[in-house]
Amino acid sequence: MRLKDMDRPRDVSRAATQARFHVVRRLTEDLAHDLHPEDQTVQSMPDCSPTKWHLAHVSWFFETFILAPHLPGYAVADPRFAFLFNSYYEAAGPRHARFARGLITRPTVEEVAGYRARVTAAMDGLLSRADDGAFERLAPLLEIGINHEQQHQELILMDILNLFAANPLRPAYSPFRAHAARIAAPVSFHEFPGGIFEIGHDGPAFAYDNESPRHAVLLRPYRLASRPVTNGEWLAFMDDGGYRRPELWLADGWARVKAGEYEAPLYWEKDEAGWQAMSLGGMHAPDPAAPVVHVSYFEADAYARWAGRRLPSEAEWELAARGHRVAGNFLESGALRPLAADHGEGLGQLFGDVWEWTESPYVAYPGYRPAPGAIGEYNGKFMSGQMVLRGGSCATPADHARATYRNFFYPHQRWPFAGLRLAEDA
Amino acid sequence: MRLKDMDRPRDVSRAATQARFHVVRRLTEDLAHDLHPEDQTVQSMPDCSPTKWHLAHVSWFFETFILAPHLPGYAVADPRFAFLFNSYYEAAGPRHARFARGLITRPTVEEVAGYRARVTAAMDGLLSRADDGAFERLAPLLEIGINHEQQHQELILMDILNLFAANPLRPAYSPFRAHAARIAAPVSFHEFPGGIFEIGHDGPAFAYDNESPRHAVLLRPYRLASRPVTNGEWLAFMDDGGYRRPELWLADGWARVKAGEYEAPLYWEKDEAGWQAMSLGGMHAPDPAAPVVHVSYFEADAYARWAGRRLPSEAEWELAARGHRVAGNFLESGALRPLAADHGEGLGQLFGDVWEWTESPYVAYPGYRPAPGAIGEYNGKFMSGQMVLRGGSCATPADHARATYRNFFYPHQRWPFAGLRLAEDA
Amino acid sequence: MRLKDMDRPRDVSRAATQARFHVVRRLTEDLAHDLHPEDQTVQSMPDCSPTKWHLAHVSWFFETFILAPHLPGYAVADPRFAFLFNSYYEAAGPRHARFARGLITRPTVEEVAGYRARVTAAMDGLLSRADDGAFERLAPLLEIGINHEQQHQELILMDILNLFAANPLRPAYSPFRAHAARIAAPVSFHEFPGGIFEIGHDGPAFAYDNESPRHAVLLRPYRLASRPVTNGEWLAFMDDGGYRRPELWLADGWARVKAGEYEAPLYWEKDEAGWQAMSLGGMHAPDPAAPVVHVSYFEADAYARWAGRRLPSEAEWELAARGHRVAGNFLESGALRPLAADHGEGLGQLFGDVWEWTESPYVAYPGYRPAPGAIGEYNGKFMSGQMVLRGGSCATPADHARATYRNFFYPHQRWPFAGLRLAEDA
Amino acid sequence: MRLKDMDRPRDVSRAATQARFHVVRRLTEDLAHDLHPEDQTVQSMPDCSPTKWHLAHVSWFFETFILAPHLPGYAVADPRFAFLFNSYYEAAGPRHARFARGLITRPTVEEVAGYRARVTAAMDGLLSRADDGAFERLAPLLEIGINHEQQHQELILMDILNLFAANPLRPAYSPFRAHAARIAAPVSFHEFPGGIFEIGHDGPAFAYDNESPRHAVLLRPYRLASRPVTNGEWLAFMDDGGYRRPELWLADGWARVKAGEYEAPLYWEKDEAGWQAMSLGGMHAPDPAAPVVHVSYFEADAYARWAGRRLPSEAEWELAARGHRVAGNFLESGALRPLAADHGEGLGQLFGDVWEWTESPYVAYPGYRPAPGAIGEYNGKFMSGQMVLRGGSCATPADHARATYRNFFYPHQRWPFAGLRLAEDA
Repeated sequence: MRLKDMDRPRDVSRAATQARFHVVRRLTEDLAHDLHPEDQTVQSMPDCSPTKWHLAHVSWFFETFILAPHLPGYAVADPRFAFLFNSYYEAAGPRHARFARGLITRPTVEEVAGYRARVTAAMDGLLSRADDGAFERLAPLLEIGINHEQQHQELILMDILNLFAANPLRPAYSPFRAHAARIAAPVSFHEFPGGIFEIGHDGPAFAYDNESPRHAVLLRPYRLASRPVTNGEWLAFMDDGGYRRPELWLADGWARVKAGEYEAPLYWEKDEAGWQAMSLGGMHAPDPAAPVVHVSYFEADAYARWAGRRLPSEAEWELAARGHRVAGNFLESGALRPLAADHGEGLGQLFGDVWEWTESPYVAYPGYRPAPGAIGEYNGKFMSGQMVLRGGSCATPADHARATYRNFFYPHQRWPFAGLRLAEDA
Repeated sequence: MRLKDMDRPRDVSRAATQARFHVVRRLTEDLAHDLHPEDQTVQSMPDCSPTKWHLAHVSWFFETFILAPHLPGYAVADPRFAFLFNSYYEAAGPRHARFARGLITRPTVEEVAGYRARVTAAMDGLLSRADDGAFERLAPLLEIGINHEQQHQELILMDILNLFAANPLRPAYSPFRAHAARIAAPVSFHEFPGGIFEIGHDGPAFAYDNESPRHAVLLRPYRLASRPVTNGEWLAFMDDGGYRRPELWLADGWARVKAGEYEAPLYWEKDEAGWQAMSLGGMHAPDPAAPVVHVSYFEADAYARWAGRRLPSEAEWELAARGHRVAGNFLESGALRPLAADHGEGLGQLFGDVWEWTESPYVAYPGYRPAPGAIGEYNGKFMSGQMVLRGGSCATPADHARATYRNFFYPHQRWPFAGLRLAEDA
Repeated sequence: MRLKDMDRPRDVSRAATQARFHVVRRLTEDLAHDLHPEDQTVQSMPDCSPTKWHLAHVSWFFETFILAPHLPGYAVADPRFAFLFNSYYEAAGPRHARFARGLITRPTVEEVAGYRARVTAAMDGLLSRADDGAFERLAPLLEIGINHEQQHQELILMDILNLFAANPLRPAYSPFRAHAARIAAPVSFHEFPGGIFEIGHDGPAFAYDNESPRHAVLLRPYRLASRPVTNGEWLAFMDDGGYRRPELWLADGWARVKAGEYEAPLYWEKDEAGWQAMSLGGMHAPDPAAPVVHVSYFEADAYARWAGRRLPSEAEWELAARGHRVAGNFLESGALRPLAADHGEGLGQLFGDVWEWTESPYVAYPGYRPAPGAIGEYNGKFMSGQMVLRGGSCATPADHARATYRNFFYPHQRWPFAGLRLAEDA
Repeated sequence: MRLKDMDRPRDVSRAATQARFHVVRRLTEDLAHDLHPEDQTVQSMPDCSPTKWHLAHVSWFFETFILAPHLPGYAVADPRFAFLFNSYYEAAGPRHARFARGLITRPTVEEVAGYRARVTAAMDGLLSRADDGAFERLAPLLEIGINHEQQHQELILMDILNLFAANPLRPAYSPFRAHAARIAAPVSFHEFPGGIFEIGHDGPAFAYDNESPRHAVLLRPYRLASRPVTNGEWLAFMDDGGYRRPELWLADGWARVKAGEYEAPLYWEKDEAGWQAMSLGGMHAPDPAAPVVHVSYFEADAYARWAGRRLPSEAEWELAARGHRVAGNFLESGALRPLAADHGEGLGQLFGDVWEWTESPYVAYPGYRPAPGAIGEYNGKFMSGQMVLRGGSCATPADHARATYRNFFYPHQRWPFAGLRLAEDA
């Protein structure tokens, strides 16, 4: 682990870090609280994992990378869990096939809760008994573990929605709270100058290694839309033949359209009353003023071409977002869906609501080197074939978002809470 | 429904039939009793179904074919259950895809228990209030419903074993009770004369329509082995290159060997200590004296060729079994695995322990016609591509077995409790 | 090789056999004569093989089973041809994957012609120089080789039709010669008595081993239709929703209907003018009076159910056909498609026009044992999962058909020249 | 078509352009000259096309984009050819499925030759009769057509090698001419400064639209290897476990290694004498001093990581190559395989021998807009999921290569003549 790249905030007190560890552990458990054991066990598709698996995997992460190497005499809860709950760390040994995570009915939900409690207690003991020097050495790993668990909080929600959408009963994960109807703010385009700028992580706060090194980029003047594309605008795209016109699409996306994969955003269904969309609150008509969500990069790109614009690059997005406060409709709001925003000045909804597809392939920043060992597999080995998304969504923990954060998915994937914001050359 | 083919025993009292309904309903629930909700929800492969689905489906069967048409004013528990829990009855409307039964985390196990209780109570009311004439009219359907639920009892056990075998922890469904070690009885061959004989169902007892009409068959003199092939004998076949010699195999079976599908019976695994086999009691070394189980028709056929013999026809088997009492190691013994048998006179283990593959493709008996309507889909539409098995297994309810019973599976399938008995021309 | 089962006619002169060898070799070459090298090289689907491969494979058969073992000093044309042109004989060594036969652009068509000439000449030398005893020993193998090549003559035509039907240009293999329009003869049903009868091959003429042993069968009285089902009748089935009514279908067939595989006979296409069918003579409207062809067993079975009848068993067919002269619309007529027949007495079109699906799974006759060695793989190892067809088609050489002949295909396959004749219980 | 982006050289005489048209047409036909009709018809995998298809497709391109719109009264050779020979132009109408190009045995090779002659003659007539103004208007399309046909010349060679490598006989496309044995030049790294530079096409010479607009890029100082990685170096990578060490690989590449797809460069086979590689000259041991070829991006990236270096970006490559003469081992050398190079000063083998994988995803240059209409589909719609390669190969026509040329393939593809050159930060 290179402390430089995956560092903890130097100005954060030890007590605060320990407290945050417990808050994050608790939140994960809260997310699963209203799910039945049945819901927590099933895997709806290979990209998804069962809730129970997420609950166990993030504990295995603490156990493997902190407890086992750093707590003298620590005995793992069950040596077989390394096989079951390792996600993709080749250096951490063999593991159960990803697509088969839903076959693991044992350990049960209750047993996994016991495993979590055991790991939390052991971590608590380790952290409490560590002298300041030891704590300082553990802190970077602890930060990664906390942030890692936050990522899985969003995955739990993405994966449960996917599962419930596959159930003909379309059950709701949480009650649907109506949001006062609004009209979408008119979109405006805000101009940014060209020049040489620095992007990427800097300073003492935590960031993943893929946000480093901070480096110079050369940009041409550009404009960014004041808000994400809405459901209402997406319906206009559909009404104008958006899913039937090959000239709007990248070839790989059009092949999926022709194969019947895309004909509306994921989770949209048409009945006699019109379009309904499955959400964590169940089936409801899409709010025309709210950001469209669950579209692939291919769809976002086609929309932008239809609109005569383009998607922003990740550098353009980061520079525009840099001065903004990280606030918005995050997981903590409890809405668990993108919402229409207040009309305001400047760029809105940069953080929260929907991850925003960029036109940037997910590759290493100049000079990037992954950490040695298993932790080095966290980000670096995925740097091919995926696209960068920025900003965070209605399922992202608020303190997990930042302007330099690089999320990434394959261009065909639609189960993230992903939408888009338009850009254009100035 | 043609009463002639799927008839109820005329000499069985109404009270006994009603009692049997409750006993069978209870047994199904007992089979699920020690399973966690997690275990009851997951589908390990498209051929299998979740326990919970079985529990609901057999209730839907009573609701659809008895309560809805025969109980005035009956309102179904949930109109969406017809979609979720219809197995394959085209005439009963559209249904959820078979391979996706494991995605249905709702209704929960508890809700399905409520559904079962509601159906059982409504059935109880209907049966209790029926006058004798009405009861007489319902009785054939009731018999089918009871027998149908018994079939699913065996499926529950087959499917749970398949699921638990896919879990790296290899959990046991029930405690493994050791069986006193024995030496397999030496096999002997018992001769039966040729001639014209009648096979198939006759008389007032219940039988499925595919066991009728009773009809004449022409047989040549033959011999049947005194007991099924054992694990010990199967090991000799394996040691002699049984899975490596194409001349022993049907072409379709050999293609599966070459594709890596077969190299030992299903659920066998080799470790440094030798072969272990997963069973409902967990992982144990195969008992050399017990019947081999979880082999496909292709493997059974290859074994017979290696042994210089053949599999019996279903007529040969039925005629040999006819005079024997239907007794053996059935579900009720609680062993839940094939056991070595006592040395005895004549043919042993005809019933129970393992279903025995025959050389007979599953086709209609001369003059067979399925019943009209949805119930006619019960057996008839599966009469292509499958092979007949006879006798019942350690997971079959004892009173569900009989000499005329025709079980059927595809020749490549291995998850049934299926073994083999040798035959030869006399 | 057991001479008993695959025997040559004892009453046929040596000269006649040698002459027949040359006639058959020539006919195969004539079938390929008007095909371009391009046509002879491509494989349209895994079930099919390129013409060139057939031309070489039948030569490899003579080389491997006759020349190499019986002609002292014979050197094979090219030792690599054994790998390329072995079809499925495990005992004859490793071989090229079946699905990849179309990748073999070398040896060229011209080189394969050279190979054929070399093998024909070597065979001629061997046969001419053999004394009578030697000839007598070679004769059974020679008969198999000749019959084997005749089977591939029909396959060449089946496979070329499949290839040309996949070409958007729909080229014709041979000129379409119009046939005087007729009205289909009204169908009548002819009754046959029940009882014990013998079926299977008997006597000195050649037959494949799967036609033996001759054995007794027990039949119930039955009736057979006077002619095969026609295109006109098939259209009535289609108009009556034949491909949309699950109650008419076996489950495995209906699954293919739902998957979009079957909606009319293979090679039928609907345009604004109605149905057109691709044939070896190109695209033409199906003749309503001619036998329907290119239907699967599943479709034939569904049709029979729709018609309130059934398919005959192979024993019923053989007993009815036994007394009839083997004459009809065979390959030699040059029509290369089924034709409407003259109205006549009794059963018509038993031989030629279309192979007739029976209700009989392809299994061994009682007492059947395949020959030892590679030749034993000819028929026996395919005895699972397939159905028997009887009678011969418009692409079968006339002297290759006989009442005891058992053809076999999987129930889903449609590229053979296969139709159906109805039967019913008397 | 925007003339600005796909422009013709303004300084090239009309006569020279017309002459080049004929030279290119002739060269294509020469490439097919020694292939048999069988070879020209078969498609070895969906990525490849038959030679015959290439021959026809490039003619359809001239017919569709020049003759039909610009030659008054021109009648297409066969209206069905638009369906058969359109590659991927959605705007040009429906087309035959790419994976099924190998089923098209008609039109024959001879008929396609006739089609080519007809199109060449019509083009000749159009060009010869055009006044200077008309010629000037046609010239950009003519340039694209010529360059398009040159691309297919390389594809013909790539695809024939793939086909011949799938033939167990491993035939050679052309005689293997031995190359004097050499020792690979020691590799050195040449440094280039950082700063802001312009890359992309500029000036009057022809370039594809994806090479524009010329634009500024910001580079950090870097070093490039003096020559591509050789077979000898690749063997060292293999010997050091290159294909067995997950830490060297991107996750998507490692998944292919585990699936058995990669264990050496494509076309390498190990026999008792060591590694042999299939080439257009047949099977030979890889020359240790020649550039390695037929490796995927994933393999190239893993090699670079193993070597402690990285792949260059396309901007780094272009800036380094800009000053070099476009000379090297191209198609015209007749070697048709990468060759060991002379030891020289500076960077060698930038052009010819092997395309060099870069670390740059294939995306649009800033400000890029594809042309309207079908021609706009030429490059733009493929800008996702692929990686840029630079430099040209032993199968590229010499006058088709240039420093700004952007070739692109998916990172898993190996049938191009692709290798790699190392880079590192300075």
